[in-house]
Amino acid sequence: MGSEVITVTTREQCVALDEQDELAPLRAEFLLNEGEIYLDGNSLGPVSRAVRQRVDDVLDHQWGEQLVRGWGSGWMAQPTRLGDRIAPLIGARPGEVLVADTLTFMIAKLVGGALNLRPDRHVILTDRANFHSDLYIMEAMARRAGRPITVKAIDRSNLASHLNDDVALVELTHVDFRTGEALDLNEITRVVHEAGALMLWDFAHSTGAVPLDVTSAGVDFAAGCGYKYLNGGPGAPAFVYVRREFQGVLENPLPGWLGHARPFDFEPTYEPAAGMQAWVTSSPSIIALAALDGALDVFERTTMTAIRAKSLALTDLFIELVGQRLPGHFTVVTPLEHSRRGSQVALRHEHAYGVIQALIGGGVVGDFRAPDICRFGFTPLYLRFVDVFDAVERLVAVMTSESYLDERYLVRNAVT
Amino acid sequence: MGSEVITVTTREQCVALDEQDELAPLRAEFLLNEGEIYLDGNSLGPVSRAVRQRVDDVLDHQWGEQLVRGWGSGWMAQPTRLGDRIAPLIGARPGEVLVADTLTFMIAKLVGGALNLRPDRHVILTDRANFHSDLYIMEAMARRAGRPITVKAIDRSNLASHLNDDVALVELTHVDFRTGEALDLNEITRVVHEAGALMLWDFAHSTGAVPLDVTSAGVDFAAGCGYKYLNGGPGAPAFVYVRREFQGVLENPLPGWLGHARPFDFEPTYEPAAGMQAWVTSSPSIIALAALDGALDVFERTTMTAIRAKSLALTDLFIELVGQRLPGHFTVVTPLEHSRRGSQVALRHEHAYGVIQALIGGGVVGDFRAPDICRFGFTPLYLRFVDVFDAVERLVAVMTSESYLDERYLVRNAVT
Repeated sequence: MGSEVITVTTREQCVALDEQDELAPLRAEFLLNEGEIYLDGNSLGPVSRAVRQRVDDVLDHQWGEQLVRGWGSGWMAQPTRLGDRIAPLIGARPGEVLVADTLTFMIAKLVGGALNLRPDRHVILTDRANFHSDLYIMEAMARRAGRPITVKAIDRSNLASHLNDDVALVELTHVDFRTGEALDLNEITRVVHEAGALMLWDFAHSTGAVPLDVTSAGVDFAAGCGYKYLNGGPGAPAFVYVRREFQGVLENPLPGWLGHARPFDFEPTYEPAAGMQAWVTSSPSIIALAALDGALDVFERTTMTAIRAKSLALTDLFIELVGQRLPGHFTVVTPLEHSRRGSQVALRHEHAYGVIQALIGGGVVGDFRAPDICRFGFTPLYLRFVDVFDAVERLVAVMTSESYLDERYLVRNAVT
Repeated sequence: MGSEVITVTTREQCVALDEQDELAPLRAEFLLNEGEIYLDGNSLGPVSRAVRQRVDDVLDHQWGEQLVRGWGSGWMAQPTRLGDRIAPLIGARPGEVLVADTLTFMIAKLVGGALNLRPDRHVILTDRANFHSDLYIMEAMARRAGRPITVKAIDRSNLASHLNDDVALVELTHVDFRTGEALDLNEITRVVHEAGALMLWDFAHSTGAVPLDVTSAGVDFAAGCGYKYLNGGPGAPAFVYVRREFQGVLENPLPGWLGHARPFDFEPTYEPAAGMQAWVTSSPSIIALAALDGALDVFERTTMTAIRAKSLALTDLFIELVGQRLPGHFTVVTPLEHSRRGSQVALRHEHAYGVIQALIGGGVVGDFRAPDICRFGFTPLYLRFVDVFDAVERLVAVMTSESYLDERYLVRNAVT
């Protein structure tokens, strides 16, 4: 249960909360649509001023003027440099994180590498409610492992009962993309290690929103997304974490020239570069990396502790106000316990698609997840308490007017 | 041998050639450094005005205002839409090309898929002088094929003698990245097919510079680079070509959610989308795609035939002037026969690194390829005949002053 007694019932109280909010000045760093309340930063974060500046610098100067010389004056180091900027957000040490590719490719690399470290084991355990792309790529890598590997997608609440000495790897997404439930990073990593298996976490819905400490949790491998709470732009590069102890041990199964120890010696045989550089395959988009680089600036003006505190306050407030104003309309799917909550609230409703569409029409952007979830993401960097209040007001208008039943919404089109 | 008698010896003649050049107006589309002659577009092409506009549009409007709604209003189709824009440049039909990922990943996907189509064969034949990233990823995919596969890297001139009924796939780079030699697309594809093998071409140094007709050549698969002659920006997305007959037959071995038939239904089992969409894995950078989209505009104002004619005229002129002005200084490594030449000229010199560094200091950008190659790329879209003349003048200054022997260049640092 939420441990604080929440008494907010008026917009004025929300204004007061914003006035006390130490993160409030950060909102000015983002280029937001006037009048729109954006509760979808868990899908795609907005543009910041620093992103704009960094992309301009690439086009006007780095690429524009230096041209190919850019590779000699900074671009080669971007994947590791950005990795080191993300490292503090997940509790990693310098030299343990790298940015490149997309999240699915990073999962592919880690799964392929990890299976080689447990050659006598034949099972990957994962969550049947996992993000589907993780499931697809694990199946694909299992088929190419060189030995029979079974991907067992189970109910994650029964994880312990499936752990045994045939499990090579456990892969879980830390915050469920539908429900917003956050799993117990420390405890799960511990029991997986007790069974002699390796632990790979997908932090797509955690990084930048939920404090993580991979070092103290003993996490082996992780990967995450650049375009959700990190605000790096649509299709921003992903990141990969390989615990220091596994570097030089875990092999990148999809190697390329930029991960070679001497890429410009053009040697016919692959020899991995030291450290995380070996996890680069070929040239990542420098424009996309620059956008993510700019997006990371704002995180240096606050802490994950402050972000988490405001995130919980925002989601508490949303849940409370929905309960006050719309009793009986929705089932709150997201756990109420703070320790089990990510930075989103999922509400179940029979007409979820219509509710989201009608809300977007009313200037509140959330998203729909099939079959019946209204999903709202709360990003403390740019959302105000009054935004939460106003969003619920507009939700009340949608529900009381029943505009969500509009026939335009009956044939759902989830690509929104 | 070059079939035309070249008589150009003066700058005035080059000015006259520029005045007659139908491609000359296209130069104004590029944002070039004043006074610099850029002969490295075969490594990284320059920024164009359309790239600037397209990236601005993503930041200001598509991402900036539409935010997550961008996925519903154009972004999902970008990989196939850009593929269809590249298709005419390689002679592909609509629906046969897709843009995403990086070139090495695309080679990985094609090799993994192709090996499954020849399950009784055990050899991949390739060129030992191939770009090294192709060699690394083929070795890696061979190790994960589920059966013993040998990657035989041979002298490509002996290709025919290595073809037999154990060869599953032949992978070759069409234009050699060091020498600029162009291979015979039609003849090689034909003999490979005669042996019952599949043919995969790497068009990194061909696309946008050399006319290609994959349809009439009967090419099975190909991939190419977005940041060389296509000018899509550093680390621009790559493209992949899968001949129509293989679609639905060739499987993408690295599948992801955006290649699913119904990506927003979040189904636990992968089912490939129809056509090229199945070759997308997860979200490509929309900013990077937008840059490449802008870069492709200029190709709609000319033809590959016109580009090729000027490319040969520029490289002929360069070879001729170097021979006239610097007899005995360099060995021309690039074939003189037009049919065997890409759009670059490689000159061999004992002090190649110093020559390139001194030339860059003099405002002519070429590049060095270990151990002894000075490499000059000629992009007809923005290079003038006077640029070739002036570049050779500056090369003469470097060679006669022996500035290439400067001690700064003795320890070569190839990352330039």
